[in-house]
Amino acid sequence: MFDVAHLAHVELLTPDPDGSAKFFTEILAMEETGRSGESIYLRAFEEGYHHSLKLTGADRAGLGHIGWRTTSQAALERRGTALAATPRGRGWSDGDVGHGPAYQFTTPDGHLTEVFFEVTYADISDAEQTRLLCRPQRRPLHGVPVRRIDHINLLATDVAACNDFLIEQLGFRLREQIVRGDGELRGVWLSVTALAHDIAVMQDGLGEPGRLHHLCYWYGTAQHLEDVADVLRDRDIVVEHGPGVHGATHAKFLYVIEPGGNRIEFFGDTGRLVFDPTAPVITWDQDHADVAGSWIGSPAPDPDFYLYATPVVPIPDDLVRTSQVGPRLTQERHSG
Amino acid sequence: MFDVAHLAHVELLTPDPDGSAKFFTEILAMEETGRSGESIYLRAFEEGYHHSLKLTGADRAGLGHIGWRTTSQAALERRGTALAATPRGRGWSDGDVGHGPAYQFTTPDGHLTEVFFEVTYADISDAEQTRLLCRPQRRPLHGVPVRRIDHINLLATDVAACNDFLIEQLGFRLREQIVRGDGELRGVWLSVTALAHDIAVMQDGLGEPGRLHHLCYWYGTAQHLEDVADVLRDRDIVVEHGPGVHGATHAKFLYVIEPGGNRIEFFGDTGRLVFDPTAPVITWDQDHADVAGSWIGSPAPDPDFYLYATPVVPIPDDLVRTSQVGPRLTQERHSG
Amino acid sequence: MFDVAHLAHVELLTPDPDGSAKFFTEILAMEETGRSGESIYLRAFEEGYHHSLKLTGADRAGLGHIGWRTTSQAALERRGTALAATPRGRGWSDGDVGHGPAYQFTTPDGHLTEVFFEVTYADISDAEQTRLLCRPQRRPLHGVPVRRIDHINLLATDVAACNDFLIEQLGFRLREQIVRGDGELRGVWLSVTALAHDIAVMQDGLGEPGRLHHLCYWYGTAQHLEDVADVLRDRDIVVEHGPGVHGATHAKFLYVIEPGGNRIEFFGDTGRLVFDPTAPVITWDQDHADVAGSWIGSPAPDPDFYLYATPVVPIPDDLVRTSQVGPRLTQERHSG
Amino acid sequence: MFDVAHLAHVELLTPDPDGSAKFFTEILAMEETGRSGESIYLRAFEEGYHHSLKLTGADRAGLGHIGWRTTSQAALERRGTALAATPRGRGWSDGDVGHGPAYQFTTPDGHLTEVFFEVTYADISDAEQTRLLCRPQRRPLHGVPVRRIDHINLLATDVAACNDFLIEQLGFRLREQIVRGDGELRGVWLSVTALAHDIAVMQDGLGEPGRLHHLCYWYGTAQHLEDVADVLRDRDIVVEHGPGVHGATHAKFLYVIEPGGNRIEFFGDTGRLVFDPTAPVITWDQDHADVAGSWIGSPAPDPDFYLYATPVVPIPDDLVRTSQVGPRLTQERHSG
Repeated sequence: MFDVAHLAHVELLTPDPDGSAKFFTEILAMEETGRSGESIYLRAFEEGYHHSLKLTGADRAGLGHIGWRTTSQAALERRGTALAATPRGRGWSDGDVGHGPAYQFTTPDGHLTEVFFEVTYADISDAEQTRLLCRPQRRPLHGVPVRRIDHINLLATDVAACNDFLIEQLGFRLREQIVRGDGELRGVWLSVTALAHDIAVMQDGLGEPGRLHHLCYWYGTAQHLEDVADVLRDRDIVVEHGPGVHGATHAKFLYVIEPGGNRIEFFGDTGRLVFDPTAPVITWDQDHADVAGSWIGSPAPDPDFYLYATPVVPIPDDLVRTSQVGPRLTQERHSG
Repeated sequence: MFDVAHLAHVELLTPDPDGSAKFFTEILAMEETGRSGESIYLRAFEEGYHHSLKLTGADRAGLGHIGWRTTSQAALERRGTALAATPRGRGWSDGDVGHGPAYQFTTPDGHLTEVFFEVTYADISDAEQTRLLCRPQRRPLHGVPVRRIDHINLLATDVAACNDFLIEQLGFRLREQIVRGDGELRGVWLSVTALAHDIAVMQDGLGEPGRLHHLCYWYGTAQHLEDVADVLRDRDIVVEHGPGVHGATHAKFLYVIEPGGNRIEFFGDTGRLVFDPTAPVITWDQDHADVAGSWIGSPAPDPDFYLYATPVVPIPDDLVRTSQVGPRLTQERHSG
Repeated sequence: MFDVAHLAHVELLTPDPDGSAKFFTEILAMEETGRSGESIYLRAFEEGYHHSLKLTGADRAGLGHIGWRTTSQAALERRGTALAATPRGRGWSDGDVGHGPAYQFTTPDGHLTEVFFEVTYADISDAEQTRLLCRPQRRPLHGVPVRRIDHINLLATDVAACNDFLIEQLGFRLREQIVRGDGELRGVWLSVTALAHDIAVMQDGLGEPGRLHHLCYWYGTAQHLEDVADVLRDRDIVVEHGPGVHGATHAKFLYVIEPGGNRIEFFGDTGRLVFDPTAPVITWDQDHADVAGSWIGSPAPDPDFYLYATPVVPIPDDLVRTSQVGPRLTQERHSG
Repeated sequence: MFDVAHLAHVELLTPDPDGSAKFFTEILAMEETGRSGESIYLRAFEEGYHHSLKLTGADRAGLGHIGWRTTSQAALERRGTALAATPRGRGWSDGDVGHGPAYQFTTPDGHLTEVFFEVTYADISDAEQTRLLCRPQRRPLHGVPVRRIDHINLLATDVAACNDFLIEQLGFRLREQIVRGDGELRGVWLSVTALAHDIAVMQDGLGEPGRLHHLCYWYGTAQHLEDVADVLRDRDIVVEHGPGVHGATHAKFLYVIEPGGNRIEFFGDTGRLVFDPTAPVITWDQDHADVAGSWIGSPAPDPDFYLYATPVVPIPDDLVRTSQVGPRLTQERHSG
C-alpha cells in the first residue's frame, strides 16, 4: 500500500497561544500564514504547503490533530472508505485553511487524525523570493530557522493496538520497536517514507490515553541544535534533553518545552534512511534500551522525559522522587 | 508506479584495480566482501547488502552497470516483462554474487542497467557487531568511512530520451532539470525515493554515448567532506571540486578522481528530500545555471568538470584552452 | 617584547555608509554602539570593548586606521616613545569614543595605525544580559551573528619593509611567509597572540601603496560560514571566495564584499594556534603556493582576489582578460 | 610576567600500560615516539615536539607530572631561581627524552610539576611529510586523530593555595572561578596563553591531595567529538559525559575514561579566547553553577563526575546512593 505520502501538518493545543506563536515565529523563524478563530497557521521556510503547524488556544496543552497527505485523490478515497469501515472512522470534513476535504478518524488511543490530498501551496512574497529555486523562499534573517516538519511521537495506553492500526489502515511499515523482557511492546517507530519514522508511539507510563510526547521539526545540521539551545537558554525556554544522538533512528536530537507546555524536538540530521524494501524490523530489548535512547550524549532525564507529556497530568510523588531533574519541570507545569 | 525501490549497486570499470580497491578500502573504509574473476565487491559500513560497488578491471575506466532493487518479486517481474517489450531489453541473467535474478537492459544512451529483487545481506563478523542495532556493523577505525551509496550521474548524447525512458519504464519522477534558452533539455535529476535524485543525466559535451560523470557515496556530515579532502590531498588523489553546496538538489558535495580515473562524489548531507507527491519540477534556466551548480562555494572548474568523464576521451584543444585547471587533469588522464 | 596585546579595532572607509552599516548590523548582528560625525561604531556580540569597527563615510572605500591595544599603560608609553623616534611616528591623539590616548603612526606603506591602552567596556542593556557569564551578552536573535574581530590583511608595495617594521617596532613575530623563486618576500603573516596571524601583509600587484585587502571577523564554527553565505547570496551581496580551508594559517574561510566595497573575511575556526615560543617560520615557496591559498576548496578567483582591494583602482585589461570571474566584480566596482 | 609559554606535556600513571597505549595510538591516532623503562612517549599529529604524553606503568592511575615550557632559557632560569626559594622547590633534573634541563617542584597540593625550555622537535618520517607546511605531518588514516594537548584539570584540597601559587610563581592569570555562597573558592581556571585555561584546579570532594581530574586533548571540530564517542561506545570504553558545551570557558567537550582509569577530555573547539589584557575574572556563583558546567547539554553525572578522579579512592556509600550513573563507573573502577 502506497496511499499515505507523508506527515503534512499537526495541530497543537496551547494554553498560551501568544507565547507559543512567538516561540515558533521569533525563535524558529516560522511564518504566520493565517489566522482563523482561535487558531494560527505557521510554516517553516523550506516547506511548500500553506502550513505545517496549527496552533489552537485551549485550556490545556496537547495534540489537536495530525494531518497526513495521501499520494493521490484516489488514494484518499481508498483510505476514506477503508477507515469508515472501522470503529475509528469519524467522517469527512470539508477541510481547513490550506487543504481540501479530509477524512477524519482516531488512533485506537484516541489521537485525532486526518488524511487529505488537495493542498494550497505557500504564497511567497516578492521580497522572499530566492535564487535557489529548489526551495520555496529565501532563508529568514531572524531566529534560528527550522526547515520542515519531521515526525510526531505519541504516547498511548495500548502501543500494540496503535501499531497494528497504523500498519493495517494507513500502510505504515514498522521500522524499530522496544520490547520488554516479558515480550510487551513498549514503543514503535513507523514510516511510509524513507525516514526511519514519520510517527512513533510509546507506552504512556501514567496510563493516560491520547497524549502527545513531542512534535519534531528538522534543522538538518547539528550546529543549529546548539544555536537554538543557546538562544533558548538565555530566553527562559526549558531545554530538556540533548543535543545528542539517538540509538533508535540514529538521529541527532534536541528536546525543548515550548511556552504552551508541549515538548518540541529538533533533528540535526535525517537519521538513518530506509530504502531497503525488505528491511528487517530493529528490536531494542532491555539490554539495549540505553542505546536506543542515547547512542551519544547523556541519558534522558528519568522519569520526566518519559512521563511528562501533554495534556500534563501530575506525576505521582514516588516517581518524581526518583528523578534528579523532574520536580522542576513537572511541578512548574502542574502549577503553571 | 512503485516498482523500483532504490539504487542498490554500481559496477565501475578501472584500469587500475589495485589502486581503485585501495582507495575504497583504505581511504573510504569500505570492506571487501568478495572477489570473482576480475571483480572485487565492496560495501560501506552502514549498508545492509553484500555490496554496493563492484570494481572490475578493464582497459578503460567507466561504467560497468547500474543495479536497481525492486520493491518486490512481483515488481521485478512486471519490470522485466515491460522492459523486454522495448528495444532496450537485453534479457534475464541469473544474478551475481550478492543478488538474485536480474533483468538487464540499457538506457537509450547505452548505459547497462539491471533490476533485481533477491539480495544477500552482509555477513558481519563477530568482531564488527555493534550495540547500535539499527546499523549493520560498528564504525570502522581506519580511513574516513563513507556510509552508503547515494546516486549516480550519467552523461548522455540524448538527455530527453534517457529522461523519458527512466520515467516511463522505471517509474522515476523528474525532480529538477536544466533547460537552455532554446528549450533544449541539458540535464535532469530523477528519483524513486525521497532523495532529490537517485540518478541524474547530463548532456555529454563531447558527444560520446554512455559515459559516467560520477558515482556518489554519502557521508551525511559536512565535516567528513573536509576530513576526506584533507587525507586525499596528502596522498596524491585529485580533489577536483568542493566542498560546496549545490543549488540543484541543495546538497553538500565534494568531487574527487579515484585512482582508476572515475569521478567520485561525496555528499555531506542528504540535500533536500521530496515528500510532496505533487512536487513541482524545478527548472534551472540559463539565468540560474550558476546557482544550480554551486549555491555555496566556487563554480566548478570549467570545462573539465563538464567534459571529463569516463571512459576518458580527449578534450579538444580549443575547449581546454578556455580552462584554468583543465589541462592538468585531462592531459594526465589522456596520457596515463 | 610583549607590549602589544591584540587587534582591538579597525576603521573602514565606505562610500555607502548606510549600506555598510546595514550589512554589519542586519546580516552580522553587530550592534551600533555610537555615532560621531561621519562615523558609526559597532561591536560583535562576544566582544567586550565599546567597538571593534568604526565605519566612516568617505569618497572611496579603504582603510581608515588600525587600533592595537597594549598590554599596559607602561607598554603604551614605551611604544609611543619608540615610535616617535622613527620616521613613521605621527604623534599622540586624545583617543576616540571607546578608548583613551593613542599614539598614531603609519606602516612603511602608509597604513594609519595607533596603539592605546585605556578602553571603555561595552554597556550591555538589561534585556541582553546573559546567564553565560563568560560572554558579554546573550546571542542576538537576528542575522548570522559574528563573534569577534580576528585579523587584518593589508596590501603593500614593500612587504619586507612592513614586516621589519611590525617586528621591530611592535613586537610581532613572523609566523608564515610566501617567498618567490628569486627570494622576494611576497606575503607575511604575523602575530603577537597565539593566533597564526593578527595581521598579514601581501604584495600589491598593482603597485598602489596603503591598500586594504580584507578585514576578518570570526564565527568559530564552519556551519556559520555556510549560513552567512546562504543569506548573502539571496540578498545581492557578492560572496567572492570560499568556504574553504587555507593552507597558510590552516583556517576555515569565506570572503565577501560588503556594500561599501571593502572585502570582509569570516573565519570558521581559529586556524592553527602557535604556543611554541621557538616556532619555526613557515615558508611557502612557489611549489606550495596553491596549498597556501586553499588547502581544501577551490583556488581563489585569479586575478581579482589578488588585485581587487580598497581603495579600488582599475585592473589593467590584460590582467582582467586572464580572469574568469574578474570583470564582473571589478567593473561593477569601478563604475559603481 | 611572561616566563611560562604553554603546557607542553603530561605524564599519566596507568595500571594498564598496554590498554592505555592502545587507546591513545589506535583510537586517537597518537604516535609512539619513544620508550624508556616503564614509560611510553606519545605525540598527536599536529604537535611539533617529541611528545605531549608520557604513559608510565604504575600500581594506580593518576598524575605523574606536568611539564610547562618557558618562553626562553632566561625565563627558565628565573623560574628555577624563584621556585627554589619556595618550600615547593624540588631541584633541577637533567631533563627527559624530548626535552632539556627542568626545574621540578610541586603545587601546594603536591602535584609534581616541571618547567623547561630546550625541546626536541618531532622527527617526521618521509612517508608522513605533508604538503600543508604549517603542520608537522599529514593527517593519520586510522582512528579519530586528536590534534594537540589542550589543558590539565587537577583536584586539590586547597584550591586557593594552588591558585595563589600558580599566579605568583608561574605568572598564570585567573580567568574564571567558582565561589560558594560562603565565599569559599571551589574551582579556578587559569592561563598563560589566550586559551581560557591551560590549567584548572577544583576542590577534591573526598579530601584527597594531589589527584588528577582530567587531561584534555583538542580536536577543534565538534563532529570529531561524535566520531570518537561513536567508536568508543562500540569498543567498551566508558564515555562518561558529553558532548556538550561548557559554560565556564565556553568550550565543546566530551569526557571518557581511558583503559588505565584516567579521565580524558576532548575539546571540539577552543572555547573562548582571552586577548584582553585587563579581562575581568568571571565568577560563577551558586546561581550559575549549572551553567558553568553545561551551557548546552545535560548536567554532569553527579556525584561521579565530581568525585571520581585518579588515583581512585572509594566514594562513600551515602554519596554513591544519590547518583544515577555513579555505581557503575566507580564500583567497576574500585574492584578493577
